[in-house]
Order: sequence, then C-alpha cells, then structure tokens
Amino acid sequence: MKLEPLADRVVLKQLVAEETTKSGIVLPGQSKEKPQQAEVVAVGPGGVVDGKEVTMNVSVGDKVIYSKYAGTEVELDDEEYIIVKQNDILAVIR
Amino acid sequence: MKLEPLADRVVLKQLVAEETTKSGIVLPGQSKEKPQQAEVVAVGPGGVVDGKEVTMNVSVGDKVIYSKYAGTEVELDDEEYIIVKQNDILAVIR
Amino acid sequence: MKLEPLADRVVLKQLVAEETTKSGIVLPGQSKEKPQQAEVVAVGPGGVVDGKEVTMNVSVGDKVIYSKYAGTEVELDDEEYIIVKQNDILAVIR
Amino acid sequence: MKLEPLADRVVLKQLVAEETTKSGIVLPGQSKEKPQQAEVVAVGPGGVVDGKEVTMNVSVGDKVIYSKYAGTEVELDDEEYIIVKQNDILAVIR
Amino acid sequence: MKLEPLADRVVLKQLVAEETTKSGIVLPGQSKEKPQQAEVVAVGPGGVVDGKEVTMNVSVGDKVIYSKYAGTEVELDDEEYIIVKQNDILAVIR
Amino acid sequence: MKLEPLADRVVLKQLVAEETTKSGIVLPGQSKEKPQQAEVVAVGPGGVVDGKEVTMNVSVGDKVIYSKYAGTEVELDDEEYIIVKQNDILAVIR
Amino acid sequence: MKLEPLADRVVLKQLVAEETTKSGIVLPGQSKEKPQQAEVVAVGPGGVVDGKEVTMNVSVGDKVIYSKYAGTEVELDDEEYIIVKQNDILAVIR
Repeated sequence: MKLEPLADRVVLKQLVAEETTKSGIVLPGQSKEKPQQAEVVAVGPGGVVDGKEVTMNVSVGDKVIYSKYAGTEVELDDEEYIIVKQNDILAVIR
Repeated sequence: MKLEPLADRVVLKQLVAEETTKSGIVLPGQSKEKPQQAEVVAVGPGGVVDGKEVTMNVSVGDKVIYSKYAGTEVELDDEEYIIVKQNDILAVIR
Repeated sequence: MKLEPLADRVVLKQLVAEETTKSGIVLPGQSKEKPQQAEVVAVGPGGVVDGKEVTMNVSVGDKVIYSKYAGTEVELDDEEYIIVKQNDILAVIR
Repeated sequence: MKLEPLADRVVLKQLVAEETTKSGIVLPGQSKEKPQQAEVVAVGPGGVVDGKEVTMNVSVGDKVIYSKYAGTEVELDDEEYIIVKQNDILAVIR
Repeated sequence: MKLEPLADRVVLKQLVAEETTKSGIVLPGQSKEKPQQAEVVAVGPGGVVDGKEVTMNVSVGDKVIYSKYAGTEVELDDEEYIIVKQNDILAVIR
Repeated sequence: MKLEPLADRVVLKQLVAEETTKSGIVLPGQSKEKPQQAEVVAVGPGGVVDGKEVTMNVSVGDKVIYSKYAGTEVELDDEEYIIVKQNDILAVIR
Repeated sequence: MKLEPLADRVVLKQLVAEETTKSGIVLPGQSKEKPQQAEVVAVGPGGVVDGKEVTMNVSVGDKVIYSKYAGTEVELDDEEYIIVKQNDILAVIR
C-alpha cells in the first residue's frame, strides 16, 4: 500500500534525531510549534490549490526541516508518516 | 435514496479500522484533529467554489485518508456517511 | 406573504425527522454543528456575492442536507423557515 | 434631517412585531443573532466596496428580514433607525 | 498645525450630542460599538489602499454618523479629533 | 550605522510629547492602541508587498501620527527607533 | 550540511547582542514580539508564494533586524539558525 498525497501535500517519514552526534541536527523540543527533520516519501501533484497555482519544489528522498504545526500523522503498514502541505516545509538539507 | 454532494464536497463511508492487522492502517486517536480512512461514495461536480475553480481529483471507490475536522456525519438508510470538502482529503491509498 | 431570498441565500423548510422509519434519515443530535434535512422553498438569484460569481445549483422542491451552523430561523404565516447560504447546503437527496 | 447611507449600507426602520396576528411574522428571540423585520428607509449607492463591486438590490419601502448582528442603531428626530450592510439583509417579504 | 490624513482616512471632530433637542440625534450609549455624530474636518486622498481602489465620498463639513470601533483619538492645539477610515463612516446627515 | 527599512516599512523617531505647551499635541494614554507623534527617519522602497502594490506617501522629516499597535522598537547607536508599516501611519502634521 | 530555504524563507544566524558597546544595538527584551539582530546565511528563491509573486530583497551577509514572532529555530552542525519569511525582516543595517 502506498500513500498518494493530493494537491500540494507531501508525505514525510520522520528521521530519528541523532542527539548524540556532534554534526547532527538537534531540534529543541520546548517550543509549541516543533520543527522537525524528515525525509520526503511522496509528493502531491501541486496545481491549483485553493485558487492559487502551486509548484512542487521538493522531491522524494529530500531531507527537509518542516513545521509540525499543521501536519497529520498516519500509520500505514506499521510505518508512521506525516502528511504536510509543502508550505509547511521550511528548508531542504543538502 | 442517494446523496449528491454539492460543489467540492465528497461523500465518504468510513472503513472499519483493522487494528489487529499487521499491514492495516492504524490511526492514532489521541490527536484533536483525527485523520481517518474512508471510501469515496459520491463526488461533487466541483466548478467555481467560493470564487475559485476546483477540479475534483478523487473518484468513487478510492480509499482515502481524510481529516475529520470539518466533516459532517449523516445517516441515510441506516448507513452512516461523512460529507467533507475535497480539500479535507489528504491522500489516496493505492 | 412570501420570502424572496437575496443573493446566494436559500429558504428551507425543515422536514420532520422520521426517526422510526428504517430507510429514513436520522440525524445525530450530539454534534455542535447539526446537519439537517430540509426542503428548498425559495432560491435567491445568485450573481456576484461578496465579489464572487455564485451560480445557484438547488431548485425549489429539492430535499437537501444542510449545515445548520450559519442559518437563521424565521416564522412567516405560522410556518417556520430557515434561511441559509447555498454554501451551507451539503448535498441533495435523490 | 435625513440619513444618506454610504457605500453598500441600508437604513432600516424596524417594524413592530405583530405577535398576535395569525399571518404576521413572529421572530423567535432566543437566538443570539436575532433576525428582524424592517422597512427599507434609505439605500446607499453601492459601487466598489472593499474592492468588490456591489449592486444594490433592495428599494425604499421593501419589507425585509435582516440579521441584526452587524447593525448599528441610530436615533434621528425621535425616530430609531438601524444601519446595516445590504449583505445583512436575508430576504425581502412580498 | 493641521492634520493631513493618509490614504482612506478621515479626520472627524465629534459634535456635542444635543440630548435635550427634540429633533437632534441622540445616540444610545449602551452598545459596545458606539455610533457617533461628527463633522468631517479633513479627508485623505484615497487611491489604492491595501491593494483596493478607494474613492473618497465624504467632504469637509459633512455631518456624519460613524462607528467609533476602529477610530483613533488625537489632540491637536487643544482640540480633540478622531481619525477613522472612510469605511467606518456609516451615513451622512443632510 | 543606518536602518534601511524593507518593503512598505518606515523608521520613526518618537517626538517627546510637549504636554505643557498649549498648542502642542497631547496624546491620551488611556487607550490600548496608543497613537503617537513621531518624525520619519527612513522610508522603505514600497513596491509589491504581500501581493499588493504599495506607493510610499511619507518622506523623511515628516511629522506623523502613527498607531503604535503593530510597531517594533529598535535601539541603534543609543537612539531608539520604531519601525512601522506605512499603513500604521494615520496622518501627517503640517 | 547546508540549509536551503524554500520559497520566501531566509535562514538567519543571530548576532550576539553587544550590550556593553555604546554604539552597538541593544534590543529591548520586554516586548512579547522580540525584534532581533541577525546575519543572513541563506536566501530562498522567492517566486510565487501563496499565490503572490515575492522578490527577495536581502542577500547573504546582510545584517538585519527581524521580528522573531514567526521564526523557527533549527540547530545544524552545532550551529543555531532561525528560519523566517522575508516579510519578517524589518530592516537592513548598513
């Protein structure tokens, strides 16, 4: 089974925070809107969303920082995913 | 009797969550806005909705993950349905 | 006397819920925004409403499911009516 | 002295509810947003209001049902008036 | 010194309510958003305000009913003024 | 060091209220949204801001009445400044 | 590793406030929405964001005053960054 996001939505798989690694990303957990590191698993087609043309700028495999605020957690085949709108993705990590 | 949704609305029939199946979708119930799995029963015509052109991208029979937040429950002929706007459907499960 | 709704408004006459009928629609009363079954009594002309072109898609005599949230109850000639915007009508029952 | 409403505003004179008349309109007073019966006393010119073209569809003398929620009460020459936006008028009574 | 309002703003000078005059305007003080009678002292140039074209329809010397809700009180040369947006002016009194 | 405001922002330097001067401006301090007198120190370039074309209508040296509600205080080289959007400037004092 | 901001986002590195320097910027900490001094580390591509064309006007290396209100803190390779929308940058310091 596979999740095909609609419109400007993106399916993310949260990466385990490597808190002990010096060069890893450590995300502070005290803020209400928690930013998080994740890998892009599926990307919606974009197009006209809520009357506005949206171009998708992330690709499957990208590691991203996203704002968890508007995301929705889903569990499929014992794997947990997060579905966000592309606008909730803040940056790509290269 | 049959429900014909208006505008960008979609009629869904909630699928029974197979919580014991390993490969099934298990949805966490602790979040306020509960995502849910459902099957599309009827699809509105789309068109200009609230001044914006909406194209319908789901079809009858699609299994979808939707956000229950804005949905409305209706009971017709002893069957329960949920009417949502297409924008409340997050992803299709293939 | 007759109610002529303005703009995108629709005058509804609530149908008595046939709770005992097996094939009838029974609407749950526990949710805050109560969906309801009603018959369309009068339909506004549509046109440009709040800067957006609205086409009226319901007709007098249609049985509809509406969201009571934004409706206004009016009593005329000992009959009770509900005036809603077409956007508050979720589906037509055929 | 005369009130000339600006933009899409309409000056109304509330009609005394004829509660004892069988064929009169009786408005329930229990809802927070009280619908009310009134006569149109003056009509603004319409035109571009808040960036949107508004055409005035009510005329002086019309009996209307309005939503009191956004109206403003004014007293001029010992007469009480209500100034509403046309959008707060729900229906005309013929 | 003189106040030159920007954009769609209007400088008003509140008129003293003549509560004892039979034909005067008496404004009820019990509502939260108090309508008030004032004279127009200065009118902004209008033009594109917040992306929308605004034409100024009031003139210096007009007596107006305004909604005090969004106004700002200013004191200049021992005179008190109120600066409102034209949209907060409900009607002109002729 | 110099502050160059972006977009439709304006840098203001608050003027000391001359409360004892008869012809000076005295601003009431009891309202939550305090209007204030200030001098324009720097003006942003305007242009397309939040999708809307903004023309800057104030100049360096103008004395203005502004609404403090959305402003941000900044201290640079021991001088205090306030950065506001032009839309928060209500009037120019000539 | 490098952060590539999406759309109209900008990656900032907060500058240590030189509170003892006479000519340094000292930012008051008592307001809820804290303005802050930072250096631009990375700039998103701009383009159509939320249906509106956004041109990026800041460059890597610019020292800026930003409003912390909507920003998101991220830690990468033991460095802390703040990701803001360009609209949250109030001014550039030259």
